[in-house]
Amino acid sequence: MKLKYSLITACLFSSSAFSSDGPKNIIYMIGDGMGPAFTTAYRYYHDNPDTKEIESTIFDSILVGMAKTYPDDDTVVTDSAASATALSSGIKSYNGAVAVDVEKKPVKTMLEMAKEQGMVTGLVATSQINHATPASFAAHNESRRNYDEIADDYIDNKVNDQLPVDLLLGGGVRYFEREDRNLVEEFQLQGYQYVSDFDALPSLQTLPAIGLFADKAFPFALDENPNRLEVMTNKALSLLQRQDTGFFVMIEGSQIDWCGHANDIACAMAEMDDFAKSIALAKAYVDAHPDTLLVVTADHSTGGLTIGANGKYKWNTDVIKGVRQTAWPLAMSLAKANDMQKTWRESVDWALTEEQIQQLVTAKKSEEPAVALYRQVKAIINQQSYTGWTTKGHTAVDVQVFSYGNGADVFVGSQNNTDIAKKLIGFIQ
Amino acid sequence: MKLKYSLITACLFSSSAFSSDGPKNIIYMIGDGMGPAFTTAYRYYHDNPDTKEIESTIFDSILVGMAKTYPDDDTVVTDSAASATALSSGIKSYNGAVAVDVEKKPVKTMLEMAKEQGMVTGLVATSQINHATPASFAAHNESRRNYDEIADDYIDNKVNDQLPVDLLLGGGVRYFEREDRNLVEEFQLQGYQYVSDFDALPSLQTLPAIGLFADKAFPFALDENPNRLEVMTNKALSLLQRQDTGFFVMIEGSQIDWCGHANDIACAMAEMDDFAKSIALAKAYVDAHPDTLLVVTADHSTGGLTIGANGKYKWNTDVIKGVRQTAWPLAMSLAKANDMQKTWRESVDWALTEEQIQQLVTAKKSEEPAVALYRQVKAIINQQSYTGWTTKGHTAVDVQVFSYGNGADVFVGSQNNTDIAKKLIGFIQ
Ligand SMILES: [Zn+2]
Ligand SMILES: [Zn+2]
Repeated sequence: MKLKYSLITACLFSSSAFSSDGPKNIIYMIGDGMGPAFTTAYRYYHDNPDTKEIESTIFDSILVGMAKTYPDDDTVVTDSAASATALSSGIKSYNGAVAVDVEKKPVKTMLEMAKEQGMVTGLVATSQINHATPASFAAHNESRRNYDEIADDYIDNKVNDQLPVDLLLGGGVRYFEREDRNLVEEFQLQGYQYVSDFDALPSLQTLPAIGLFADKAFPFALDENPNRLEVMTNKALSLLQRQDTGFFVMIEGSQIDWCGHANDIACAMAEMDDFAKSIALAKAYVDAHPDTLLVVTADHSTGGLTIGANGKYKWNTDVIKGVRQTAWPLAMSLAKANDMQKTWRESVDWALTEEQIQQLVTAKKSEEPAVALYRQVKAIINQQSYTGWTTKGHTAVDVQVFSYGNGADVFVGSQNNTDIAKKLIGFIQ
Repeated sequence: MKLKYSLITACLFSSSAFSSDGPKNIIYMIGDGMGPAFTTAYRYYHDNPDTKEIESTIFDSILVGMAKTYPDDDTVVTDSAASATALSSGIKSYNGAVAVDVEKKPVKTMLEMAKEQGMVTGLVATSQINHATPASFAAHNESRRNYDEIADDYIDNKVNDQLPVDLLLGGGVRYFEREDRNLVEEFQLQGYQYVSDFDALPSLQTLPAIGLFADKAFPFALDENPNRLEVMTNKALSLLQRQDTGFFVMIEGSQIDWCGHANDIACAMAEMDDFAKSIALAKAYVDAHPDTLLVVTADHSTGGLTIGANGKYKWNTDVIKGVRQTAWPLAMSLAKANDMQKTWRESVDWALTEEQIQQLVTAKKSEEPAVALYRQVKAIINQQSYTGWTTKGHTAVDVQVFSYGNGADVFVGSQNNTDIAKKLIGFIQ
């Protein structure tokens, strides 16, 4: 037996262009709800149908392992808060915990450690920026539901007398400009530049800065501004790289999870696309700045998504690509429609069958037409594309781990979500 | 920033005890239908509830990457034949193809190449040994359904004037002792030792040999002989290691897939357990014989299994561990039962609720009581454990790749299922 492959990949990472004396910068990206079925589905959704080849995705190019997501709770199915706490601090906690342990005591996060080490820190999300995942990096609370208290912590949770986060980009105006406390003004008093108009994002030229671009979360990528995370990622990296010190930034594709909860596959694929493009930017940043480590993972999977369903060996991406709106606004339009097919075709590239039209007409006649239409719209798209779902909640399947750049090799193989944090903390402390 | 982790895992594999001049022996193990949800589920099923820790599995210890499974067909969802052809030959084909390409021309398999190189070859499965997966290593046919022709090929498909496979262990007596052709006699004329009684397996002392222990497939592990693959794996490795030449063996956990098709979770976990124990034996073999490469993967996922379902953040392993029979024999017993609870408790460690008893009574009164009870038994177990399924068929989620030993490092990352074959062929040719 002769040897063919060993030379090529004798060691995938150690022979790479990246030095091994530890990264200066860390880009940590979390696809909320992005289990293995989501990254696989995205490959087929993203595929160019004009070529025979199935093109690889950005995920394929940096996959190195998987992670276990179970919380320290009476279940193996985690929520985003417990998982984000594990991913930020290396400590498993209960579902709902925001960077506190099972005794509800604060646990130190890698963002806080980075700040202690003099690094610049950032949080970017398409949810409100005080939502569970970003919150678990810079705030501490016994419950993810205490949105106001979590927003307060972005001012009050001092690290070495400094605010914990130098750059905040996301949604959540209502939590930061409250009647009882105006955090935006407090940020400004601390020297933060503030923008609230997304088109004004380019005007941010220095840190510290805060940009809040929605009352709560951004609209879904499929409905409006499909590249908002990509745009924010680009801006964040450009602001962070201008510092002399290293930086730590956590960038979340927040709404993959929400489309999963809704069992809305077109919604989910558009969120995946925005997240994938953001990762591509981060990967290019690493190529240009080899002293940087990029780590991408998910907190859990959502919805029990399966590619293929109901006994059919098929997954019709054309059906999904043909849907240009999420299910709720589409259902709202149908609720007011006289001609179901006509209204449907304003948002969807393919026509309803007679049977599907009748299903929508029946839904519209029900006691709660909006809700019934919302359900029926999703049922039609899922059935037509052979997309399967088992839950409106989360599932416990292991998630993937992707890494690239300086230090990427330590993430190869199976690991606990807390191990990802411990390895990153090893690079920070 | 100081460096903590790089030294430990600067290169996961190249610094290992295994030399890098290519493996002498290859153990290739395929979990039919074993998608990521199955290996994750097995971890929680397998966990020792008396310890706080969630114990790692054999899978966790050797995970290195994932594989894309799409066939060369009008779909992204593969069947076992197309995937086994990709995994045996490095060539994608259509669903149903047994080591033939899209033009139905035979493609050379790694088992045939191994035989050409003078290696000893083996196939081990818990299905009939002429089923799609093992078939695609040593036979060529335009359809997996041509069981007789495939069995014939194990004699007729000569490699350098020799029979392709030196050791066959599995089921399938009916295909090998036919009225029109008695292949068992032909094997014996060619010098093969033959056993058909599983208890006589230890009597096999030399190669070539063939053992057929069931008319078609073995019974499910949960119903009978939970360790039959482990026992065959042990015997196969012991017979193969006595040769002077290297060996190639493909060992399939065939029925994980079948439990997936049935959406029977207790069935699936028992099959996973037999497969996991077989992998543990193979891994120990590599430790004792460091000139050996172990590669484990799946051909696809089956059933759309999810850990957690119906909105509940839970997966009750106690429920699953408490079921000591697969759904069909359990339904058969219930079809004859006067007291549902009493009969149920003969095979299950937990009691039915009043509502569940009524569901079974209703099923028994239906026109097809056996079929209705079979469905209801599974529905009760899935609901009670929060196990989700979306299909009686396959799904397209990427599968995991596990490797260990000499050459294991080349499987790190994302790859096509055909790449797994090409890398292995690189070690053989
Ligand atoms: Zn969620
Ligand atoms: Zn199957």
